[in-house]
Formats: sequence, structure tokens, C-alpha cells
Amino acid sequence: MNTSNHIHLASSLVGREGEESGSVSKIETYSFTVEPFHVDFTGHLFLGILGNHLLNAAGRHSHNRGWGIDQLNEAHYTWVLSRLSIELAETPSQYEHVIIETWVESVMKLFTERNFLIRNADDGRIYGYARSIWAMIDMQTRQPSNLLELKGGDILNYVMSVAEKPCPIEKFNVRVRLTDDATTSTVFTHYSDVDINGHINSVKYIEHILDLFPREQFERHRIHRFDIAYKTESYLGDTLTLQREEASEGTHIIEVRKHVGSKEKPAGEVVVQAKIIWQ
Amino acid sequence: MNTSNHIHLASSLVGREGEESGSVSKIETYSFTVEPFHVDFTGHLFLGILGNHLLNAAGRHSHNRGWGIDQLNEAHYTWVLSRLSIELAETPSQYEHVIIETWVESVMKLFTERNFLIRNADDGRIYGYARSIWAMIDMQTRQPSNLLELKGGDILNYVMSVAEKPCPIEKFNVRVRLTDDATTSTVFTHYSDVDINGHINSVKYIEHILDLFPREQFERHRIHRFDIAYKTESYLGDTLTLQREEASEGTHIIEVRKHVGSKEKPAGEVVVQAKIIWQ
Repeated sequence: MNTSNHIHLASSLVGREGEESGSVSKIETYSFTVEPFHVDFTGHLFLGILGNHLLNAAGRHSHNRGWGIDQLNEAHYTWVLSRLSIELAETPSQYEHVIIETWVESVMKLFTERNFLIRNADDGRIYGYARSIWAMIDMQTRQPSNLLELKGGDILNYVMSVAEKPCPIEKFNVRVRLTDDATTSTVFTHYSDVDINGHINSVKYIEHILDLFPREQFERHRIHRFDIAYKTESYLGDTLTLQREEASEGTHIIEVRKHVGSKEKPAGEVVVQAKIIWQ
Repeated sequence: MNTSNHIHLASSLVGREGEESGSVSKIETYSFTVEPFHVDFTGHLFLGILGNHLLNAAGRHSHNRGWGIDQLNEAHYTWVLSRLSIELAETPSQYEHVIIETWVESVMKLFTERNFLIRNADDGRIYGYARSIWAMIDMQTRQPSNLLELKGGDILNYVMSVAEKPCPIEKFNVRVRLTDDATTSTVFTHYSDVDINGHINSVKYIEHILDLFPREQFERHRIHRFDIAYKTESYLGDTLTLQREEASEGTHIIEVRKHVGSKEKPAGEVVVQAKIIWQ
């Protein structure tokens, strides 16, 4: 990364006047009520909608501390979500009031780990937790940038040790190995899938993956854990192939690729990989 | 409607203690911020998301006055949306703060008209208005019920005359006449389309209809007005045929049917009809 960009980054991402990093909490809370059109036919919050709220919470946390996506964009940087893992002991129900807490667990040169706690606002019970991994990309070079230099290292002031703020779910650890038993589906992407950057949005992949499952799956099981790795972007108009296989009882592996060649042997670039553990 | 049901309705939908209808405003306000994943590739709010917020605002207005869907459900009644018309001079953009005001324009025996004003919270500019028509259905008989008897006629206390609260957009007035020039598409319905009642949710129809249009349509035009009539329910697993035709320049008519018979001559029950006026 050239020096002039580095200096440009540091000076353009100055914290708001009068705000010492020590005076802003390390944790951001974000509240929402589970809306009628955001629950599935069992009356529980759609996982994609929860993902959307988690990403909103992440955006608010980073924005309020001076390194949100809009602030990075001014210096031609952006945040890119690399991994998301959601583990729920219970899924929120219609009309429940939910609070998401989010904080930074670690900052390394090329990745930062952000965690989430998801709890009920009224009785405090914990629905579950989530973990995410982010990179900061230089929008001009498309290369990951050194997070330790973001705002002169200020982001490090927000790191919370595991002792300070535990996140008692396992880190992302998914190996995708599909066999000939995998079923393959094709999905066309449309206007409603695409975000302001023209990319299929992170939440829409979750929806398309869950739409692979029949009604009975959701009648008999709930999602205990959902892991997703975002490998590369796809765009409005892309056709995607989704391969799905039950790797072990109650655990499904999914691989989404850009559609190239025959449907039977998907060979396009891997877009996302996911694992679902059902209960 | 038999007398015992009528009495049951009136007594179970008692207003909250201490609340005189005269002490609750006739207008409910509902605020939201336009989130990153709720804008399209042009950076403007998805119409389906706006529809979702309008329906949330309607739910909040009716609930806070004692005749919300949850309160009706206790007496085995429910609200059913029959028509929705949205007319926008401007479409909200990412991060804007929006306020929706909603109120009742009229209550008749079998239908009630509810209007909306959509404005910017910070500078007050008006994005547009919406109109909706609702019926109240007896869930056991599936028959429309007499709205004038709901809560002993209390709903009439919330009616605002056009002079009190104007809604300067035309009422729903859509005639669908498709010719052989109509193009036909097929849509399969999935888990993510369906609400807690097992019905394809009202907003998802709007999304599927807009997904019929190619990227270029949204690059060159914005939606000035969207009218939709909800004729009958469809369910998870239904295949829908969507026929679309440009009735006059910039005006498209859409008819969605349950898929029966051949794709070329859709003959299934009409589910929704819509009209889009582009600018």
C-alpha cells in the first residue's frame, strides 16, 4: 500500500471532534422488534432478516466510532464481510423485542473479528451469538489493507478480550467436500437481490440457501447454527448453481457457484460456502 | 353474522383501560431509516420494503387504538388487505430518515380506507402518499364482517375527513386487460415468500412483480405509481404465472395467477393484479 494512500486514510478518518476513543463504549447495542413480515410460517424470525440486523448493528458500531463504511468510502476503502456464523439456542418469535450487542474481539493486519450477542430486551434471555470476520479493501486496487493503520490504530482501542466479553460459540470452521450425492439447483438473480454496489447482497445468499429446503424441514427442525463464507461477489443477472448435501445427520453443506458449463458438474467460481446444523 | 359472534367481538375488543377514543390521536406516526440492504442498485428504497413499512405503520395505528390484527384475532377476526396504491414524487434514498403518517379516511360496512403520507423526517419534504383498502374477515366463516359494529363502532371515531387530512393522490382504479402481446413468466414460491399464516406475503408479490423488469428499466426510470389488488391467497409451493404488458407508454399492467394448464394460456385463479406507472 503506497504511503500517500496511507496518510490519506489516516487523515480522512479522523474521529468526530471532541470524541476521545476512551469516552465511547466498546459495545454498541441495537434494538429491533420482530415484525410480522419478518417471520416464517412457524412464527420465527427469518435467519436472513437476523443477518440483516446483525450487519446493521455492525455498521452502527463502526460508524459511531469513526470507521464505518461511509467513512472508509471517503478514503476509497470499504469493509468486506468474509465469514458469518450464527448460533441460536432459540429463534426470536413474532413481536419479541430483541437487543443485539456487538463488539470487536480482535484486530489483525488483514482481518478483524466482530462478535454479537442476541438477547431478549424484556427478560434478558439469550437467544444466541454470532461471529464475523471482516477485511478492509482498497477500492481502487481491490487489495486488502492494513487494519492496524486504520485511523492510526484507533480501532485497537475497541478490542475486548475474551475475558472482558466472552462469545461462547466456536469460531468459523467449515470444510466443504461435496460428493456425487449432492443435489444441484439453479437460481437466477434479479433486481431485488442486488445492493447499491450492484452485488448480490449478503443476506440474499442466506435466503436462497434456505429456499433450497422443503417445508417439512422447517416443520420438523430449527436452525441451530449457520456458517457462511463469502468468497467472491456475484452480480445482477448472474445465474448461480447451488449444491447441497447432508454431510452428516442434521448437517448440510452448501456450495454456491457462478453458473458455467453444465448443471451436472458445476465448474464456475465459488461464490459462497455454507454449513447448516439443524436441530 | 350471528348475534353471539357479534357480541363476542364487541366485548373482546375493549379499548385499553382509561383510554377514551377522544384522547388518542387519529394519526399514527412511524419512523424508519433507509437501511443499506433495503436500497436497490440505484441507492433508492425498494418499493416492497416501503410497502412493508406502510403495513407496519397500519398495524401500529390499529393496534394502538384497540383494533389491531392481534386484537381481532382473539375474537377470530382478521384484517385483509384488498388494495394498495403508492404514489411517489421522490423515492427515499439510503440513510434518509423517513416518517410515515397514517390515518383512516372512511369506514363503510365492508371496507375501510386507510391513507398514508410519506415524508422526510429532517427537512419535511414529502416523498409521496399511499392509499389502502381493507376488509375485516371472520376467520371461521371466511366472510367479510360488518366494520361498523367493530368495537361498537369505535373505529368511526378515528375517521378523518378529506378536509381534515387530505390525501392528494387518486384512488385505486385499475383495469387489467391483457392481450396476446403480454409476456408470461413463471415463479416458484419458497420458504422465504411465506408469512406466519402460510400465505405468500403481500410484500413478496411486489418483489416478484418488480423482478420481471430488466436492469435497464430501473436505470432509466423510477416508479411514479404502483397499484396492486390482492384478489386471493397463494401458498408455499404454489407456482405462479405472471403476465406483463405495456398498456400504454410507461404504464405496465401485471396479472398473477396460480399456475394451471399451459404457460401460454394461464387459466388459474387470479391472485393479484397490478399497475405500474414509470417516469
